[in-house]
Amino acid sequence: MPKQDEKKFVTHITPRDEDFSQWYTDVILQSELVDYAPVRGCMVVRPYGYAIWERIQQEMDSRFKATGHENVYMPMLIPESLLLKEAEHVEGFAPEVAWVTQGGNEVLTERLAIRPTSETIFCAMYSKWVSSWRDLPMKYNQWCSVIRWEKSTRPFLRTSEFLWQEGHTIHETAEEAQQETLQMLDIYREVTEDVLGIPVFCGRKSDKEKFAGARATYSMEAMMQDGKALQAGTSHNFGTNFAEAFNIQYLSREGKLEYVHETSWGASTRLIGAIVMSHGDERGLRLPPRVAPIQIVIVPVAAHKGGVMEKCDEVFAQLKTAGFRVKLDDRDTVSPGFKFNDWELKGVPVRLEIGPRDIENGVATVFRRDTCEKTTMAFTSLVADLAPLMEDIQKGLFTQAETFRDSHITEVTTMEELGKAVETGFAKAMWCSDPACELEIKERFSATSRNMPFDQTPIGDTCVCCGKKAQHLIYFAKAY
Amino acid sequence: MPKQDEKKFVTHITPRDEDFSQWYTDVILQSELVDYAPVRGCMVVRPYGYAIWERIQQEMDSRFKATGHENVYMPMLIPESLLLKEAEHVEGFAPEVAWVTQGGNEVLTERLAIRPTSETIFCAMYSKWVSSWRDLPMKYNQWCSVIRWEKSTRPFLRTSEFLWQEGHTIHETAEEAQQETLQMLDIYREVTEDVLGIPVFCGRKSDKEKFAGARATYSMEAMMQDGKALQAGTSHNFGTNFAEAFNIQYLSREGKLEYVHETSWGASTRLIGAIVMSHGDERGLRLPPRVAPIQIVIVPVAAHKGGVMEKCDEVFAQLKTAGFRVKLDDRDTVSPGFKFNDWELKGVPVRLEIGPRDIENGVATVFRRDTCEKTTMAFTSLVADLAPLMEDIQKGLFTQAETFRDSHITEVTTMEELGKAVETGFAKAMWCSDPACELEIKERFSATSRNMPFDQTPIGDTCVCCGKKAQHLIYFAKAY
Repeated sequence: MPKQDEKKFVTHITPRDEDFSQWYTDVILQSELVDYAPVRGCMVVRPYGYAIWERIQQEMDSRFKATGHENVYMPMLIPESLLLKEAEHVEGFAPEVAWVTQGGNEVLTERLAIRPTSETIFCAMYSKWVSSWRDLPMKYNQWCSVIRWEKSTRPFLRTSEFLWQEGHTIHETAEEAQQETLQMLDIYREVTEDVLGIPVFCGRKSDKEKFAGARATYSMEAMMQDGKALQAGTSHNFGTNFAEAFNIQYLSREGKLEYVHETSWGASTRLIGAIVMSHGDERGLRLPPRVAPIQIVIVPVAAHKGGVMEKCDEVFAQLKTAGFRVKLDDRDTVSPGFKFNDWELKGVPVRLEIGPRDIENGVATVFRRDTCEKTTMAFTSLVADLAPLMEDIQKGLFTQAETFRDSHITEVTTMEELGKAVETGFAKAMWCSDPACELEIKERFSATSRNMPFDQTPIGDTCVCCGKKAQHLIYFAKAY
Repeated sequence: MPKQDEKKFVTHITPRDEDFSQWYTDVILQSELVDYAPVRGCMVVRPYGYAIWERIQQEMDSRFKATGHENVYMPMLIPESLLLKEAEHVEGFAPEVAWVTQGGNEVLTERLAIRPTSETIFCAMYSKWVSSWRDLPMKYNQWCSVIRWEKSTRPFLRTSEFLWQEGHTIHETAEEAQQETLQMLDIYREVTEDVLGIPVFCGRKSDKEKFAGARATYSMEAMMQDGKALQAGTSHNFGTNFAEAFNIQYLSREGKLEYVHETSWGASTRLIGAIVMSHGDERGLRLPPRVAPIQIVIVPVAAHKGGVMEKCDEVFAQLKTAGFRVKLDDRDTVSPGFKFNDWELKGVPVRLEIGPRDIENGVATVFRRDTCEKTTMAFTSLVADLAPLMEDIQKGLFTQAETFRDSHITEVTTMEELGKAVETGFAKAMWCSDPACELEIKERFSATSRNMPFDQTPIGDTCVCCGKKAQHLIYFAKAY
């Protein structure tokens, strides 16, 4: 009987070096994170992928709440007239909007956009809710999906519909809004680095790359294993742009009518793609313990032999009580070898193998997914020994990603060097701040400016492109 | 300064007896659960309303997971051709569908429905994922919003967009599917009765009232304070209906191709409306402690006096550590009296008032929202005394709702009695099972059959409407 199911497993993951893009597709489909939907450009997030998203949600949501944010839900449909109110914003998003033109049997007099983002509807409500400085700040967030009609799509990275959170806040002063913008970027950084194990560069976007309608956009940028950049989260300071367009005014402490200062910030299921492309290897996923839906899988060996299942049950109960996310793979339709491959593909950080010989020796065989090394641990000290192992794997994956990234950054002072650098990683360069230079770099090398990192220690004083006086240190890279 | 904000508060809640519908609207708007959106028939769920929804989600989601269900996410857009595959289903939902006809600048060749429910897309994926009995059961759920283009809408009760969860499962046998259908209904009942404090009748819907495409629909029905019924959750057994339309087959243990047996079940933000209309009173909401986002609010009295804020901070920390959801209302822009009204309107189960005299006496003044009674509790035993008080309030609200309901149910044997009964509550009647009788009752009394309760102890043997032999005990009521 086992044979039948195992046939499914003789699938092949394309080697990363051969075709990184195909490797990515193979891994996300075969590990059952995601599947293609019968709708153009959309994805189905399967249980294992959704469980990772739930972990990300928990980590982010608890930090949002700890910093005084509250969750709300705004309608997904936005009347066209509302979307048109802020000129830059509509220009940026109109080409990507899916339009509802019919409701039931009724043709709508005004078409409705499915939200590509919700600044406009938040603004409409804020203008209704705010009257005095006492009502400020309002710091709201929502978890939802948005639709952006993309031409070419890839699961998690760019799809017509994706899941995200979008925070929208309004404040009395410009200083508070700026503080909020940077605080939320730092929360993204913390979750991405400390939980997902992905090092990021935080900094400010160029005017060319900023969000439609923002005064300033900040981003965190991660490097994938093919050297390309992935923008993993953004935080925007709108100043009073939207407040002026939507007339969001409040009576100040001095009794004057003032516009509120506004921010928004978002992170999405794209982060799952970032986990895959930062940590994955030839066998499939490698998940950092803090984000792994299953941290430890127990695989019984010779399960039919006396005492094996009993010991597995006992260890399972013990680890669960200790707070680990643990799974006992008790399937009797597949072999242990099949299970090993399966959980390696799915990137479970630690596997415990427990068979008659292990029991005899008083130890479990321990396989760690990050290094693929096997060792043993005494049953008597399992909980105590597994905790530091988890920390070790968590840190190890981060360090490995960081080492990779840092060895794929080139400080460049000429266009030739820049062109070469972005073939394998990021180019770190000085820039004059003229969008024309960004455009030239994009046209010649298909690379875009990523961000101007907060650490602006200069590496020269002339623009890498035009040679004029440099204003900023900036990263260029090909990007997802 | 305080005066300015307090002006807002001199709003009026319409008495329940005078106009229940207006009372409901006043309460949900003034307690800031919800607001109208600038989109026809849609609602904005505000922080306090969303916090209640998060509590409901946690209670449901943990029970779904404990019974082996996994969360996923399916696209919100469904191609028309997919929606058309199951005939009854499309007939039921087509009149309520919002259609996307344009994506970006491109006019779509096939229009896309925004999901009114997701049976069709789950079926499309299940047909791809299932091949053997070893793949079964698949028990998936998703939390999302759906759109149904409603003609007349009311926040929480009936809106063009609402939040819900929809579970979709497939099984080897008819028995398993039936068991699942009833299990999920019972989980709904448990959450609704034990957490939300709302008594419900569980039973089977008539064929006329069942879900489009289902073989059998089960529901839980609650009675609101105006005597009308609210369908608070449904669970459907599809048999092989959808499996045949979508060709979801598996290789059985006997090596034969068989159709899967399917269920779906859903509950929504409607439950928030049920909480309001079950427990609310002239002062506003009354929230059962288990669903209340804030269980205890601490209001300092004469906060400027020495020691008051210190004591409040101390009690706050103590209660928080003890696991209560507690809030310290330290606003200095409004008076204690304003705060009392505010938190009563918002239905917080317990209010602690702490002022200089209380501190002197070593007690906090305790106001319980269910009975509006004031008492005192010694600071030294606060945690120990508050826990049973919470239980008491939880049970008290349930009992009150149950007593109300039971006193508004009339056993009827004639149409005249039925017509009178549904003016103030539910009519319990015998019924022949002919939809023609349901239709007549609907036309004469605007009442519909709610469900055939599991306890079928007969109260007669002839149909209340036609006088023919009765088949079922059934509830009739006017309904939301």
